Amino acid sequence: MNKASRLFCPALITPKNAVVKQTEQLSRSQKLLTDLGLIKSGSNGTYQIMPMAQRSVDKFINLVQSNMQLAGGQKIALPVLTPTGLWKKTGRLEGDISEFYMVRDRSGKQFLMSPTHEEAVTAMLATTSPISYRQLPLRLYQIGPKFRDELKTRFGLMRAKEFLMKDMYSFDVSEETARETYSVVSAAYDRLFKQLDVPFVKVNAATGMMGGSVSHEYHYVSPVGEDTLLQCSSCGFAGNSEVLETDPQSTACCPSCKSSDLKEVRGVEVAHTFLLGDRYSKPLGATFLNTSGKPQSLVMGCYGIGITRVIAAALEVLSSDQELHWPRLLAPYDVCLIGPKQGSKEQPAAEVIENELLQTIGDICGHEELLHDDRKDLTIGKRLLEGKRLGHPLTIVVGAKSVQQDSPRLEVHLSNGEKLELDLSEALNLVAEHNHHKKVLLNGRFIRENDESISRSVGHQL
Amino acid sequence: MNKASRLFCPALITPKNAVVKQTEQLSRSQKLLTDLGLIKSGSNGTYQIMPMAQRSVDKFINLVQSNMQLAGGQKIALPVLTPTGLWKKTGRLEGDISEFYMVRDRSGKQFLMSPTHEEAVTAMLATTSPISYRQLPLRLYQIGPKFRDELKTRFGLMRAKEFLMKDMYSFDVSEETARETYSVVSAAYDRLFKQLDVPFVKVNAATGMMGGSVSHEYHYVSPVGEDTLLQCSSCGFAGNSEVLETDPQSTACCPSCKSSDLKEVRGVEVAHTFLLGDRYSKPLGATFLNTSGKPQSLVMGCYGIGITRVIAAALEVLSSDQELHWPRLLAPYDVCLIGPKQGSKEQPAAEVIENELLQTIGDICGHEELLHDDRKDLTIGKRLLEGKRLGHPLTIVVGAKSVQQDSPRLEVHLSNGEKLELDLSEALNLVAEHNHHKKVLLNGRFIRENDESISRSVGHQL
Repeated sequence: MNKASRLFCPALITPKNAVVKQTEQLSRSQKLLTDLGLIKSGSNGTYQIMPMAQRSVDKFINLVQSNMQLAGGQKIALPVLTPTGLWKKTGRLEGDISEFYMVRDRSGKQFLMSPTHEEAVTAMLATTSPISYRQLPLRLYQIGPKFRDELKTRFGLMRAKEFLMKDMYSFDVSEETARETYSVVSAAYDRLFKQLDVPFVKVNAATGMMGGSVSHEYHYVSPVGEDTLLQCSSCGFAGNSEVLETDPQSTACCPSCKSSDLKEVRGVEVAHTFLLGDRYSKPLGATFLNTSGKPQSLVMGCYGIGITRVIAAALEVLSSDQELHWPRLLAPYDVCLIGPKQGSKEQPAAEVIENELLQTIGDICGHEELLHDDRKDLTIGKRLLEGKRLGHPLTIVVGAKSVQQDSPRLEVHLSNGEKLELDLSEALNLVAEHNHHKKVLLNGRFIRENDESISRSVGHQL
Repeated sequence: MNKASRLFCPALITPKNAVVKQTEQLSRSQKLLTDLGLIKSGSNGTYQIMPMAQRSVDKFINLVQSNMQLAGGQKIALPVLTPTGLWKKTGRLEGDISEFYMVRDRSGKQFLMSPTHEEAVTAMLATTSPISYRQLPLRLYQIGPKFRDELKTRFGLMRAKEFLMKDMYSFDVSEETARETYSVVSAAYDRLFKQLDVPFVKVNAATGMMGGSVSHEYHYVSPVGEDTLLQCSSCGFAGNSEVLETDPQSTACCPSCKSSDLKEVRGVEVAHTFLLGDRYSKPLGATFLNTSGKPQSLVMGCYGIGITRVIAAALEVLSSDQELHWPRLLAPYDVCLIGPKQGSKEQPAAEVIENELLQTIGDICGHEELLHDDRKDLTIGKRLLEGKRLGHPLTIVVGAKSVQQDSPRLEVHLSNGEKLELDLSEALNLVAEHNHHKKVLLNGRFIRENDESISRSVGHQL
């Protein structure tokens, strides 16, 4: 049972007459997450994830994992420490290295606190027993912390010095099959971003320091984005202006439909896919045995999703200045139930209903998904305000109206601001509907309307 | 569907006439995990976790989490980087710091790649809005990588420079309530180690560099252990000899039953609990507001479990020189199904049974828990040998005997070496029994024999 009275959610309390010095540029999501006690600024651009935000992170990790498994991914874990020697071999220590954290061990050997793992995973494959063409394609992914000593950290989890990434690396026999892998993983990304139900833009991207030939970025459109995208109002085409500018034609009219209706928007890059070719396998000697038994360079791809960044950027897009709004599948809790105030005259009767609801709602949406705001020393109004700011998809109030003789009513608040007054069974129906909606999102277009197993399961839970 | 043909399991292949130079002390578990392709030595004492071992890690993480939740734990995530300044305040940089990885950021500020997070979590609490006594006890935990620049890494995952830890920190109003928390978390640890079903020894321990007053260690008994434990053959009492030696009496006779039947065994420390008092809260100023509204130092405890070390040490205890044996709840897969060899005369008929079993076994134990060894170019014997070395709880062979006219039989191999010949429904019953056993382990003593819901669910799945 999740009780609000026990939840560690260290809200920032600013005294009313305090003069707040604004030293850093704050984004909406960062301000809300910090003020409400979901994240806490650590030291110099690192962040501490508090329990409620951690629930969202864990939900997203599960969602990402199930999509990676569907795309044939196998989960592994590579060390944070990568020997710098490997990065010398690929030439990635020759450019600007000011963003790398480097550390020496007691023997003097130097390591990177890895900002990414192309070298590490490629070197790992280069030192296993020879891989046969029959074992390919191979798609390995991991989820773990990455490190970048940013000159300017910004917007909380959106650009922090430590962040959580999902990174997948693919290995194929040829450019052709690597493109197939690229399609499969891209489809998994498309599905994932549709499940999140936050409008996203997928653009052709520059390959940059990664190298390789083909690359796409997934962006959330927001004024705090660091990239400039050009979007065609006619056909929906979008591109990173960085890429389009190499061809002056394409900034004047849409490369896809030739319309001149291009407008500039700002995007937060939340995911990135690359076809790498032999950019890493060649210098590091990662080969497979081809059909003639001869070693041949592996053809690689890499695929990243910024776990903590997706959450922050989605909140940035969906939230208002006053209230968090979560992607439905990432809300820390599905339902918040607020009980009567201590000492109110309805308390005894309302508590009977409250206890019944704790059971029945928990049975519908899962007891882990129900937050019981049991802080009865606080007024309903105060708790409701907090619940709305936290953005629970459904907040249900058991107050004075719930014990009316003639027609007992529950107040139900939706995260879109709607307020309903429902009787008990209507309220439970709404919880079931919301739960169904979650499953529909999860199953995306793969679900049929009136899918029997789902109707059955919802029906059963009611 | 998990197919062995797609599983990345880079076994070490040593040419028959190779002279292997043994430069490092290897343990049984490390040798098997490496040879079979479950882990791979990274660089200088770090390890890469390959997909099959990662499944075990993820299972253990889930098990640990459910026990931490039951003990009132709330999950958070703290950065890997902790400012060294915090460690100066607690005096922990004054001793031997040769095991710490230290790194400077671009501004010259120094950080530890945290080997543990007492300072970080305490400083976090010291800088939140004042906590009221009403919000306590508070139990925060995380699961993430830790770093220790060991002089001598040993036995693979058992003592590596990077390792995965679960660390919980508790905060109480008084020594008395902190002891209650200590009991609650200790009970969760006891339950967890019983679920793992590997014999463990719990001993009084020295508090060492952590400080504090009360401390216990959980050990797996193994010749490769680094600690010497004294165990009483009469009453079962055990203590770390490091602690007992401070009292010469206690090494001569058992402090509990006074028997002189003490014997020395070697233990691998897999978990550790500490009552810390105000060892960290005082120097870092982490307080709560007491009933009179006055700030008072928080009373702390900390509780660690070496995630990767538990797995390695459990395998060390259970395995033979030739075969891995897993704690039942941590086996990467529950069942391995081996189909007929390509081109054998039974192939067509056996494949009908194979396909049926893929469905029915998956329905019983969960499709995620079934590994299908579909490498039909390999003989059954070769695949069976590998399956036995990998230690699957159940390996089921669909071979020539399965298509016998009179009495078709499946060969079923258990991880204890037993080999059975069963008909189809007997084999399915065995899978269901094994699945039931897993649930019993999971529910420990809290389950009643003949528990109805479980019989029903097993019955249903059959």
